Amino acid sequence: MAAYWMARCGINARIIDKRETKIFVGHADGLRPRTLELFDSMGFQHRVLHEASESTEVNLWVDQGKLVRQALLDMTQADHSPYHNTRLSQGRIERFILDSIHENSNLRVERSVITESLEYDEKLGGEPEAYPITVNLRTLGSEELNTPNSDKQSFENEITHEDLLPDDWEDLTQRGTQKEKAEIVKAKYVIGCDGAHSWTRKQLDIATEGSNTDHIWGVIDVVAISNFPDIKRVSVVTGATGTILVIPRERGITRFYVPVQICEAGASDRFDRSIITPKLIKSRVQEIIAPYTFDFEICDWWTVYQIGQRIATQITRGDRIFLAGDAVHTHSPKMGLGMNMSLQDGFNLGWKVALAAAGTIKPETLETYDLERHPLAKMLLDFDRLWVNLFLDIKPGEKDTKAESMADMSAKFENFAHGWNVYYPASNIVSKSADGGDARIPQNLAPGERIFPFKLRNQADGCPQWTTRLLKSDGRFRILVMAGDVRDPVQKQRIEKLSQALGTQSASGSPILDRYAGIPGRFESPIDIFTIHCAPWREVEFFDFPEVLRPLSMVTGYAYEKIWCDDACIFDRYCDGTAYEKWGVDRALGKLVVIRPDQYIGWTGDLEDLQGMTQYFDGVLVKKSHVDGASMLI
Amino acid sequence: MAAYWMARCGINARIIDKRETKIFVGHADGLRPRTLELFDSMGFQHRVLHEASESTEVNLWVDQGKLVRQALLDMTQADHSPYHNTRLSQGRIERFILDSIHENSNLRVERSVITESLEYDEKLGGEPEAYPITVNLRTLGSEELNTPNSDKQSFENEITHEDLLPDDWEDLTQRGTQKEKAEIVKAKYVIGCDGAHSWTRKQLDIATEGSNTDHIWGVIDVVAISNFPDIKRVSVVTGATGTILVIPRERGITRFYVPVQICEAGASDRFDRSIITPKLIKSRVQEIIAPYTFDFEICDWWTVYQIGQRIATQITRGDRIFLAGDAVHTHSPKMGLGMNMSLQDGFNLGWKVALAAAGTIKPETLETYDLERHPLAKMLLDFDRLWVNLFLDIKPGEKDTKAESMADMSAKFENFAHGWNVYYPASNIVSKSADGGDARIPQNLAPGERIFPFKLRNQADGCPQWTTRLLKSDGRFRILVMAGDVRDPVQKQRIEKLSQALGTQSASGSPILDRYAGIPGRFESPIDIFTIHCAPWREVEFFDFPEVLRPLSMVTGYAYEKIWCDDACIFDRYCDGTAYEKWGVDRALGKLVVIRPDQYIGWTGDLEDLQGMTQYFDGVLVKKSHVDGASMLI
Repeated sequence: MAAYWMARCGINARIIDKRETKIFVGHADGLRPRTLELFDSMGFQHRVLHEASESTEVNLWVDQGKLVRQALLDMTQADHSPYHNTRLSQGRIERFILDSIHENSNLRVERSVITESLEYDEKLGGEPEAYPITVNLRTLGSEELNTPNSDKQSFENEITHEDLLPDDWEDLTQRGTQKEKAEIVKAKYVIGCDGAHSWTRKQLDIATEGSNTDHIWGVIDVVAISNFPDIKRVSVVTGATGTILVIPRERGITRFYVPVQICEAGASDRFDRSIITPKLIKSRVQEIIAPYTFDFEICDWWTVYQIGQRIATQITRGDRIFLAGDAVHTHSPKMGLGMNMSLQDGFNLGWKVALAAAGTIKPETLETYDLERHPLAKMLLDFDRLWVNLFLDIKPGEKDTKAESMADMSAKFENFAHGWNVYYPASNIVSKSADGGDARIPQNLAPGERIFPFKLRNQADGCPQWTTRLLKSDGRFRILVMAGDVRDPVQKQRIEKLSQALGTQSASGSPILDRYAGIPGRFESPIDIFTIHCAPWREVEFFDFPEVLRPLSMVTGYAYEKIWCDDACIFDRYCDGTAYEKWGVDRALGKLVVIRPDQYIGWTGDLEDLQGMTQYFDGVLVKKSHVDGASMLI
Repeated sequence: MAAYWMARCGINARIIDKRETKIFVGHADGLRPRTLELFDSMGFQHRVLHEASESTEVNLWVDQGKLVRQALLDMTQADHSPYHNTRLSQGRIERFILDSIHENSNLRVERSVITESLEYDEKLGGEPEAYPITVNLRTLGSEELNTPNSDKQSFENEITHEDLLPDDWEDLTQRGTQKEKAEIVKAKYVIGCDGAHSWTRKQLDIATEGSNTDHIWGVIDVVAISNFPDIKRVSVVTGATGTILVIPRERGITRFYVPVQICEAGASDRFDRSIITPKLIKSRVQEIIAPYTFDFEICDWWTVYQIGQRIATQITRGDRIFLAGDAVHTHSPKMGLGMNMSLQDGFNLGWKVALAAAGTIKPETLETYDLERHPLAKMLLDFDRLWVNLFLDIKPGEKDTKAESMADMSAKFENFAHGWNVYYPASNIVSKSADGGDARIPQNLAPGERIFPFKLRNQADGCPQWTTRLLKSDGRFRILVMAGDVRDPVQKQRIEKLSQALGTQSASGSPILDRYAGIPGRFESPIDIFTIHCAPWREVEFFDFPEVLRPLSMVTGYAYEKIWCDDACIFDRYCDGTAYEKWGVDRALGKLVVIRPDQYIGWTGDLEDLQGMTQYFDGVLVKKSHVDGASMLI
């Protein structure tokens, strides 16, 4: 996700991976609605939807003499997102992100490259143009790589053609050879996304807090042969001897999370993996799911892990070196939150590093990574500790309150788990000072949160589009001019006044679009303007809007993609003209909103508050005169 | 489209093209809803939707002293299809079909291969296993090919990286070299999809009827720089000096169809193309669209053509050699019907040739290609003659009734133009005898027509899916057991009786799934069974249905994808539980329906009419004992 931003913003970066290949099977698989919204802004959500398995319910099965389906929890608020809880192999997500990097740049992931040393010169940390980091890299030559893929040990069998989609199969089989080489790389920034046992974290001598639990779980991805009724529905099954999780996946696969062992308390922190086999995991499932049958012929992947909850005490060194994902937080992998939280870490950090390297935003913006993501990692662990408890075995004779507890937890943590609320605090990119905390903030347009997605109609062609797709993650901040009902002459005049102010020189300096450094090689201005009005689509014309809102290029014509309308569209049931209401924007008065490059709300204000908005941008963007010759090497 | 079927059904085929490359820009662009439904059944409609430009309205502009928008015709019945009128370059459609061929087989399009002779031995025509056709092929060597792409002459400029999406760019630039060679190929079947000047048609000495008109049109794909309000909406603009068509496209392009010249009546049939230039076309647009401005910097593609309406008098020779697409019908290219009709020709013909070559269906089924598609070609030309007239210049002083005529025509021909009705007559694959013509035929389940698409819920996982996607075009016939409300014990009993009959040996021979030859290398049975019930989703379980409807494989488990439910789903506004009503199926009684491999309805009957259904299958499918060692070479 971080590499996506480097590709998208034209940054001179290296993406190195010690793995020989991308991931093809297994690993994480749960995708939360917010992650899918971000994928939409990155341009590949249609591929996810085409392949993935969706669901909106969780079934709870309990042992009441026999196994019974006790409750069916609706995990999705139907209208809160275009997307639902979804499962797709991490390998496919990697595929789509890799393809996106390929489409947007010449960057490629360099594989079988290991890091041998990392040095950070703190004295240079304060100089934006300096390269304070030195990394020694070694590219492994083909002759050192003796396995066809490094996943090998996780498999019962080798991966075959049938296991993979054609594009992944070609990736696996058509790799070239590479020669061994050593390199010294000088960098402005380093992002360590190197997992639970992060090498980067160790080099920085950053401690982790937390511990392993006594519980050892097995995971198997199989094509289940079973008469259990909910093999294709997300289910928590508590039989007489334990609790398992049933997670249906794409391509007929079902994943089972299975408790296989409880270590003795105080025994060694690490356990002996070798005693756990797919056969053992299978017999545990059979035991718990009885009297229903369970077996399989095809096992796509399996693994064993000890549940641990650990968090890194720091996630950055001098805002030059960063940790993200599992390098920061590890926890039980049963809520799909690991991959989602990690993807969102990378997404949050990537645009900041990219735009700081590009000379577009002020380097101090990088402080907000720690500010925004570290508390979430802590929340995640708090959540996980509660969640894991629900899976501990019920003691005989004890009243089983699992269903109630789970329903409670789901309701309480839903917005967090789905990624709909992130609670980003005030900073130079989240303005809560202007109208923070008081009634003037529209209910669903809170700075620091996502903008609630809606389908809007393009004024020029009338076609509906999700805001998650039209607000592209291309590195730019976006001003949303919520113009209100522009048939009203008074409102129209306010828009004209605003447009004039947006386009012209003012006492405070150059017009807002010319005031700040662009993204070199990508965009002249780091700010893009979208207008969303709420007059009926047929009663307004594209050309009714001032030209600064729909600029003319003598090569690409008018910017037809910039004027949108919150009106119903008879041929799309999801485009129903309710965005203003649900955003809490007054149709008569409109609103001014700034969206950050990562799709979170940065600032809101009245249509007249150009000064407040300029102040916001001044706090984050580099003014034009300051950016002569900024190097892009990171 | 025909090649798709060869790939999908595992046929040993050659796909040869005299062009050096696929098409990258220009050519046809209009996609009708029915074509998109077929793409969904082929598995790539999500890619089309992601890239294409949609629209649902047509605007009419007329000259009333000044140009005014006179009418806005709604061209789409909102709920008649998941898809709308859509535009995307033919080059992208080729991309998706090529990728699908690649994913399903080892077949590849062989380029720069020309045909030198075609011989057909009629004496062998009646022997299914004979190879009555001899084709001499010549593969052109790289040294003979002196242009980087054969489209060159159509361009102002060469294609650059910016003009193409990355996958097309790699296709264009990463071609290998090839050596010249000559070959003699013996074939069972040949399909000539070789365009208006079809070489195949000439070899067969098949005449065309019809003629060119006097009207010469220009087409330009440009990024328009214009203050005309409807550049992004499909528009018919009749200015003082003529009529143009404005067709918005993907990637900011707009296509203009422009009358540039009227030949003298009786003058030479062919005109001098060289006098027509983009500059001349541009000035015609400027003239007609005035007082609005029009200009462009970027011209993606342009061409000139003389409107002709021609139809081949025959479309097959002995049901061994076939013509499809422009080789059969040419007409004015302004309604998007050329590409759609041609794609559907190939789709109709492809599965028949593939399954005949595979020994799955009786060769006489091939007669239905002529029966089904030739009359449609005639209808297309009738429609086109009427349509073209609307674009002839209004004579001064005459009342302009264009808007009324267009609205009339649209209403009259809509179902035909969209591809929703095909009017396929009775044959061995369209049973109109059983309950044909009488009131027992459900209104929207008429044999010979498409099955009206709906979103249904999968019984096992509860997720909604369009019928267009779940009824995959994989070569199999499909029995839809419309089981009705299976909570009713009487109805449940009927389903059990039917299932027993489907699964067991009967007086008429082996059970229906074991009775017919399969598709070698693909499917053991050419028949797939889907059940669609209409009880509330939560009141029925997957395992309530008899096993023949949800068979168990000891490798892939239960067939969870086979039981569907017509019930509303709160998280999908399109899944509203109305399929039974709109199909006209009695919820208490249900229905039995057979869908052909190409998604058209073949037969309908009551749940007890297994005999009628078996009769239908006996008429088209080859019984098992008849197919020992059928060769697959075509």
